[in-house]
Amino acid sequence: MAHAEFLFDFGSPNAYLAHKVIPGIEARTGASFRYVPILLGGLFKRTGNQSPIFAFANIPAKMAYEHLEIQRFIARHDLPFVMNPHFPINTLMLMRMVTAAAMDGGFKPFVDAVFRLMWEAPKKMDDPAIAIAALEEAGLDASALHQRSQDADVKAKLLASTEDAAARGAFGIPTFFVNGQMYFGKDRLREVEEALAG
Amino acid sequence: MAHAEFLFDFGSPNAYLAHKVIPGIEARTGASFRYVPILLGGLFKRTGNQSPIFAFANIPAKMAYEHLEIQRFIARHDLPFVMNPHFPINTLMLMRMVTAAAMDGGFKPFVDAVFRLMWEAPKKMDDPAIAIAALEEAGLDASALHQRSQDADVKAKLLASTEDAAARGAFGIPTFFVNGQMYFGKDRLREVEEALAG
Repeated sequence: MAHAEFLFDFGSPNAYLAHKVIPGIEARTGASFRYVPILLGGLFKRTGNQSPIFAFANIPAKMAYEHLEIQRFIARHDLPFVMNPHFPINTLMLMRMVTAAAMDGGFKPFVDAVFRLMWEAPKKMDDPAIAIAALEEAGLDASALHQRSQDADVKAKLLASTEDAAARGAFGIPTFFVNGQMYFGKDRLREVEEALAG
Repeated sequence: MAHAEFLFDFGSPNAYLAHKVIPGIEARTGASFRYVPILLGGLFKRTGNQSPIFAFANIPAKMAYEHLEIQRFIARHDLPFVMNPHFPINTLMLMRMVTAAAMDGGFKPFVDAVFRLMWEAPKKMDDPAIAIAALEEAGLDASALHQRSQDADVKAKLLASTEDAAARGAFGIPTFFVNGQMYFGKDRLREVEEALAG
């Protein structure tokens, strides 16, 4: 069975959009995606890159096109999406928590819940009280995960994944790897699917 | 019959790559592309945008990925491509000449010849003597076109096309329009083709 990796950070709307179409790609190709949590802010620091909202701040036409392509993607795949009014969200806590879930269990329901709380029913998810309450309402033991996420081995794991991503050539989110080939951006998902099918 | 517009400047390798696959899209869809010469440097000034070689100068991983995607595109479409050793080339003279050809005749052979001399058998095409000699060797009356390109109406036409592109939301090259919808980048050609087919 073919495998792909999906490097993500909850703070990226384009990571959310990729997350929503990955199940369809898995169903059509029989492949499975391994989700790899990384810290986008850390990757930016390592690579000299920055978020489109900063990179395109003085290029309004480019920013408008970025938004247009998000709207087209949403329409093509019939996705729910609500821009988070608190964007950009500092995701350090969330990425440590999801790393803890990857190490200890409960990864997939946590990923689904956080992406939903970021980009479907958005909340200020860098506020620990708000995030923990929303996740517990979704049935997750977020308090325990938050506690666990502060352990040194969890912090080290997230740091290592982020450094590994940079070492493999990643500079942004979403990034995919198939058979050692890197693809950047939600708009590469067709090529990713072709690589998995072929 | 469906129509598309292709906004181009000879200085963009990605415009060359688009130019090479457009005939296939026309054959498959029955559509035709109208080529619109614009001055990329002028568009950058108008929109605050800049070339990837400047924008990504301090983001080596992003620049490397840009090159990887060019190589993938070339491989997928089996295209000849040689990086112009004199890149970036100042294209003001060439874009005025192609604008003159659009106004007076001989547009298509001129476009084919210049793209080839930029990106297949590359020459220092911002040197008037080199460019005119190479184009005359290709059978074009480049001296006359060069002379004509210095007339005020030709200069004004290129300026107007560039300003019109900015007014319609363009910020880079290659840009396509289908039914009033804008698409940026060679990697949007699948969506362009779908829009023309659909």
